[in-house]
Amino acid sequence: MNWTVIDNGDVTSPRGFRAAGVAAGLKQSGRPDLSLVFSDRPAWAAGAFTSNRFAAAPVAYDRALLARKAPVRGVVVNSGNANACTGARGLADAEATAAEAARLLGVSPTEILVCSTGRIGVPLSLPVLFRGLNAATAALSPDGGAAAAEAILTTDTRPKALALEVRENGATYRIGGMAKGAGMIAPKLEPPHATMLAFLTTDADVEPGFLQACLTDGLDGSFNRITVDGDTSTNDTVLLLANGAAGGNVLNQTSPGATRFRAAVAHVMAVLAREMVRDGEGATRFIELCVSGAASRGEARRCAEAIANSALCKTAWFGGDPNWGRLLAAAGYADVQVNPERVSLDYNGVPIVREGRDAGTPETEQAAALKGPECRIELDLGTDGTGTAVVWTCDLSYEYVKINAEYHT
Amino acid sequence: MNWTVIDNGDVTSPRGFRAAGVAAGLKQSGRPDLSLVFSDRPAWAAGAFTSNRFAAAPVAYDRALLARKAPVRGVVVNSGNANACTGARGLADAEATAAEAARLLGVSPTEILVCSTGRIGVPLSLPVLFRGLNAATAALSPDGGAAAAEAILTTDTRPKALALEVRENGATYRIGGMAKGAGMIAPKLEPPHATMLAFLTTDADVEPGFLQACLTDGLDGSFNRITVDGDTSTNDTVLLLANGAAGGNVLNQTSPGATRFRAAVAHVMAVLAREMVRDGEGATRFIELCVSGAASRGEARRCAEAIANSALCKTAWFGGDPNWGRLLAAAGYADVQVNPERVSLDYNGVPIVREGRDAGTPETEQAAALKGPECRIELDLGTDGTGTAVVWTCDLSYEYVKINAEYHT
Repeated sequence: MNWTVIDNGDVTSPRGFRAAGVAAGLKQSGRPDLSLVFSDRPAWAAGAFTSNRFAAAPVAYDRALLARKAPVRGVVVNSGNANACTGARGLADAEATAAEAARLLGVSPTEILVCSTGRIGVPLSLPVLFRGLNAATAALSPDGGAAAAEAILTTDTRPKALALEVRENGATYRIGGMAKGAGMIAPKLEPPHATMLAFLTTDADVEPGFLQACLTDGLDGSFNRITVDGDTSTNDTVLLLANGAAGGNVLNQTSPGATRFRAAVAHVMAVLAREMVRDGEGATRFIELCVSGAASRGEARRCAEAIANSALCKTAWFGGDPNWGRLLAAAGYADVQVNPERVSLDYNGVPIVREGRDAGTPETEQAAALKGPECRIELDLGTDGTGTAVVWTCDLSYEYVKINAEYHT
Repeated sequence: MNWTVIDNGDVTSPRGFRAAGVAAGLKQSGRPDLSLVFSDRPAWAAGAFTSNRFAAAPVAYDRALLARKAPVRGVVVNSGNANACTGARGLADAEATAAEAARLLGVSPTEILVCSTGRIGVPLSLPVLFRGLNAATAALSPDGGAAAAEAILTTDTRPKALALEVRENGATYRIGGMAKGAGMIAPKLEPPHATMLAFLTTDADVEPGFLQACLTDGLDGSFNRITVDGDTSTNDTVLLLANGAAGGNVLNQTSPGATRFRAAVAHVMAVLAREMVRDGEGATRFIELCVSGAASRGEARRCAEAIANSALCKTAWFGGDPNWGRLLAAAGYADVQVNPERVSLDYNGVPIVREGRDAGTPETEQAAALKGPECRIELDLGTDGTGTAVVWTCDLSYEYVKINAEYHT
């Protein structure tokens, strides 16, 4: 690797970033619900947002702000309320949030991005949010990344954050990131899709077009290959801020370090995406679904998604049941070409199906291959095509039902 | 109505049909697993089968047999084994089943349809099946419809059967039906999609083209509008046999009684489809989803399916949680046109969303509208289009997870 992982790294590991996470009171539980990430200097921003037709007010706000192609200074993120399906008031509330943060931070409102996650359809309480903003501004710290990663969570059981240090020409720059899941996770992000939220920071000096390209290129191998429940949120947002505080040359697509930067960003995105699925609502098992032998990449993807979102497959995984018929049935209704006489399937390298029929592996060995917290499932559709796709997903447990039959905030 | 419902009616209510249901031993539980329906005289048959690309051997067999456009005499249905993903052996086993039944019944093998439901990927045990066929043949009875309806069940909690008597020109004919669910239910039936199985019989004398037309036309309002789990089975089959035993004129599409016959068949199909969802795996609540104001009928349908198959919507219904944001989010990722400023939503006639925002109905009243075993949800997407669709579905409960994390047969 051309990078090292920073112990307990997060979005404030890159130089020139401060952050905070506080309990504003948007969550009835009283848990932290407002994060602020601030760059001490102007930063280029790249973003990707949900393709949901009911995209939330902060998504509309951020899209418009990024279209200005001007540097930004910070991001306000609240959990506990999605500010989605809130009409004109929702958009006004997003604007007011940015304006108040800007006022407190002494910057322009057009330099503040806003994100929300939580209940849909309930107007934000600005007085509550503003009190939190005040506290978050006061608490901003170069060590605040961990608190920020905590305050963006909803049904997540743990924060997700990391940071890398990349050595380039004798100098170093850093890339930090944090993310939250844990339900309504099937991002289909349009470059400039989740309510996953992910935030990356870097102190590298990056040309803005290349910054956006790196983010966009990283989606396929990260957030756009995950699904917890097949439900694509109204609020999914990925943001990447680059403030240049590390010094060094400006990175663009022709720079000697371009490939390394791109790979490092992709790695941070992939780690966060994988962690999001591992911490998916009620998840007890992580599934890496690899589909090959499809007529096209799109068909491989559609097939993998059908399996990953099949309630029957997901509950079988929870039960540790090798019931491969459910996987083939899902592949069969995915509206993709299959060759029933040539299809093959493996669980963690153990042959399950060969030439469309049971491979003869004893059921106890099939079941053993499914045990453990992770399983790699390889399905070859047997067509003459070479389409492949990878999707990361998880099982569907009693806990998932509990969380979602009772979750309200 | 132009018909009366026959008390405790089933597939043997029409004259000239006998049936039986026995325990052959295909199910480890020892419960009944083999049904036989037999017409004392040649009967025209109409059918609809799964669109799953891994369609099971008996589906392939029946499709070929119906393509002969010749009368049939009976249907053999086994539960406990789907005979799907079983390759060439599976097809040979389906043929052997028909041949053995024909031998026992003294008819031609090309007059016997076969259907299977149960575990995918396990070869049928013909010796066990043949013993069962022998017993079923001996047990054939004009009162055997109830036993037949019992022996086709898998995870169903109860049999589903009914029969109507239709008065036409002073004479009467009857239409009977039985069906099973209860999981892997999202039929997309192609005229000539579930493992739902449904069998209808009638003693009316019906021209075969018209018979098939009536079956095909009934799909949209019945089996093709239901989904329990979004998983379209490899084995879904609907069959309708007409043996003419009631006498009277031959019914065709220009007959005075054509409309009534068509409506009666559609009614039997709709009742069976609705019962299938009510008895869906783990179901505690029946949901009728009515989407309107869509750009097209196809978009309305796609939107209704996205909501009906959303794990978040289904668990909210289980929890009695009016969380309407989940419904709108699902509509938003269904890849259909929406007008976020004009969308409206009602639960059992109670306004939930108006003009894209919370309608102001107190949450206790919203929740009250969701209580009870049935809820009609009306969503208007607010476009200038007039597309509408209705989908029947159910909630996702702890019991669903239990059944499918532990079900093996």
